[in-house]
Amino acid sequence: MSSVLSDWNDTIVALATAPGVGAIAVIRLSGEQSISIADRLFRGKKLEDQPSHTLHVGLLERDGNVIDEVVAAIYKAPRSYTGENIVEFSCHGSPYIQQQVIEACVAIGARLAKPGEFTQRAFLNGKMDLAQAEAVADLIAADSKAQQQTALQQLRGGFSGELSQLRDQLINFAALIELELDFSEEDVEFADREQFRQLIAALKSRITTLLDSFQLGNVIKNGVSVAIIGKPNAGKSTLLNALLNEERAIVSDIAGTTRDSIEETLNIKGVLFRLIDTAGIRQHTTDKIENIGMERSRQNAGKANIILHLVDVTDPDQSAIDWLQPFAHKTIEVLNKTDQLAEPKDFPAPAIAISAKKNTGIDALKNLMYEKAIGGTIQTENTIVTNARHYDALSRMMESLLAIEKGMDQHLTGDLLTIDIRRALHYLGEITGQVETDRDILGTIFGKFCIGK
Amino acid sequence: MSSVLSDWNDTIVALATAPGVGAIAVIRLSGEQSISIADRLFRGKKLEDQPSHTLHVGLLERDGNVIDEVVAAIYKAPRSYTGENIVEFSCHGSPYIQQQVIEACVAIGARLAKPGEFTQRAFLNGKMDLAQAEAVADLIAADSKAQQQTALQQLRGGFSGELSQLRDQLINFAALIELELDFSEEDVEFADREQFRQLIAALKSRITTLLDSFQLGNVIKNGVSVAIIGKPNAGKSTLLNALLNEERAIVSDIAGTTRDSIEETLNIKGVLFRLIDTAGIRQHTTDKIENIGMERSRQNAGKANIILHLVDVTDPDQSAIDWLQPFAHKTIEVLNKTDQLAEPKDFPAPAIAISAKKNTGIDALKNLMYEKAIGGTIQTENTIVTNARHYDALSRMMESLLAIEKGMDQHLTGDLLTIDIRRALHYLGEITGQVETDRDILGTIFGKFCIGK
Repeated sequence: MSSVLSDWNDTIVALATAPGVGAIAVIRLSGEQSISIADRLFRGKKLEDQPSHTLHVGLLERDGNVIDEVVAAIYKAPRSYTGENIVEFSCHGSPYIQQQVIEACVAIGARLAKPGEFTQRAFLNGKMDLAQAEAVADLIAADSKAQQQTALQQLRGGFSGELSQLRDQLINFAALIELELDFSEEDVEFADREQFRQLIAALKSRITTLLDSFQLGNVIKNGVSVAIIGKPNAGKSTLLNALLNEERAIVSDIAGTTRDSIEETLNIKGVLFRLIDTAGIRQHTTDKIENIGMERSRQNAGKANIILHLVDVTDPDQSAIDWLQPFAHKTIEVLNKTDQLAEPKDFPAPAIAISAKKNTGIDALKNLMYEKAIGGTIQTENTIVTNARHYDALSRMMESLLAIEKGMDQHLTGDLLTIDIRRALHYLGEITGQVETDRDILGTIFGKFCIGK
Repeated sequence: MSSVLSDWNDTIVALATAPGVGAIAVIRLSGEQSISIADRLFRGKKLEDQPSHTLHVGLLERDGNVIDEVVAAIYKAPRSYTGENIVEFSCHGSPYIQQQVIEACVAIGARLAKPGEFTQRAFLNGKMDLAQAEAVADLIAADSKAQQQTALQQLRGGFSGELSQLRDQLINFAALIELELDFSEEDVEFADREQFRQLIAALKSRITTLLDSFQLGNVIKNGVSVAIIGKPNAGKSTLLNALLNEERAIVSDIAGTTRDSIEETLNIKGVLFRLIDTAGIRQHTTDKIENIGMERSRQNAGKANIILHLVDVTDPDQSAIDWLQPFAHKTIEVLNKTDQLAEPKDFPAPAIAISAKKNTGIDALKNLMYEKAIGGTIQTENTIVTNARHYDALSRMMESLLAIEKGMDQHLTGDLLTIDIRRALHYLGEITGQVETDRDILGTIFGKFCIGK
């Protein structure tokens, strides 16, 4: 019996909510048999007979033993996330009970879902394209407004829609040129070469914009790395606290929503800033250790997107840090301890005057950091490429477009042009999964998901 | 406007699933206004117009910005967990998005729920009694089959039903005796004193059984504490590993369902055994340190429910550990290293022969531990008291029953008997919340819940 079931015909089950103790937990089943499997555990009414998108309270029993009182949510194919029948059991949120429910489902024919398998089924059943599926993972990982907005735009099909338009135009021309091949003996040109040149130019321009957006997309997805560099006693640790303090108050307000952070992060206008090597700043406060840490500071400065160069304005020795020179383009001069000056003083424009201790000028500094990182406002209505796989495919498509242009300059015949056009179409289709996608690539994409999605 | 809203008329909101990253997260709203509040964020259709127990896919928007694509589950009063209108939003499981959804609800009139507030509302709205509400918290905390079964039995009203019967019988008699008071000048006895004596005796017997079950209930709820005691090199650390090994393999099987444990635990036939001071066993393997740890071993033996006294059968010095003598009633003699004996040997019955290293006799030892702790089979069909508050109320009720008996022996008049009967009824009602429950007591009970339940 089970030998006739392919990978995609069986019913999968997984915990859909975060692991650990909660008031409730949701166990999700997807597959043709999911409702009939659920019916074998559920007492109260027959779920098969209930309409889609309805909720039912009942007992879950295995071999006559009650496991829990649950709510069963029913989604009937194709009106579901995966496009298959889905049942979601909301049970009491004890890890023990979660495990009991999952084990009961497995005992009567469901199998544990692999990471991302629900979304992979949604893709294979045509509920979303590959770029949208990837956006689901991005959305789950989102921890800033900018990440959330770009992922949502991609999930809602903005990016796919744009690619689809480009693809349609290119397909149109490809068809005309291939048609010429059938009439090659007659030497006709169905495709207007000049119009085709214009299309290629337009495509190049659009792809360039998308490729350029990747830098911003990367910043949105991975955050802006910031190094705080300064001489001993410039007040680095105090600045760090001043930058982080307000943030803390916001995060800790709602119970259950805080997260463990590996490094100190800061959210400025919805963009994530990651403060590099903050442990180093907190620990190395004495002069002696500072010197040992110099090489480390230099490395941090090199890899940071932004450097905050902190200067103590009360320090008589105002000599510059020589090795910071090559990084001037990404450095913000931050003049600290301005509250300790005997008289108010003006500082030259690109520098910013603050007092980390008195918490003055911190908001202005944050604005400056945001401007430096984003360089204008984020237009989330515009499509932003955040995914390295997409960037890679777009780059290859650009190469194909350049090859087409070159071919036309050299008056290549239609059959040779066709090769490059098809290549361009392939790379475009790879992003949304419109071309046959390699099983390995699918494995890599969905393997990054959490289990249960 | 807000001044007319009492504590229980407003709409509360909380994350209902475990905190952290999951595929999805559920945000729960409860209160008269919960559906209209949800409608102000939800785009797709008007939730107010939808029937109860239905699911709706749509966008959540705040001030025109899309927060997420969600599913809204609607439960209309009184057909809901709390007895109020409930909306549950299933959103993508990023902590950032969870927070955004909760903040959006709070911004338009919901308030963050206190711990246990959903269940407290269920109690106040008559959806469950106090004992059932307490069972919800026990169920969420359940991490063994016995805990799960007793909590489920209590949640499903088994305990409450039994108390209710006792209460009805007592009320019946109380009414007759109080009636006598109205006719006190006529010196009639509506209530048959002999029958009343029998009732009190029956109640006493039943309450005694319940009180006795608390010891077992405590074991089920808190686990059985086990101390492994033995001379240096008796093989304590090897035994510890032998006891734990199989267990590990079971737990790690399903991703996302393992839990952090503070001490080493062992699940034998659904009952949790907690191994005391296992760090001490793992660390103190040399003779010298063992001696220092003697006082510690003695303390562990004192507080343990069960002592495993491990003896090395190959050790020529078979002198007993003197200070274990007072704990003989809770000690299991475990004879180790039986595989190293030149010839097979029989050992006197209460002792058990094992080889921790070869993993022989371990299952038999586990059975013995279970028998020692539970003393027969757990009858989960019988009501087991697991809650200290219930034990306390039952003890006080027992005192009142004894006072009634004493009063009848002394031929007290009905009006004096009535005082003790009312007191007995009060303590019985306290368990299920049928009598007016003190606000402080409610606070204590529900304060132990997690937020979102």
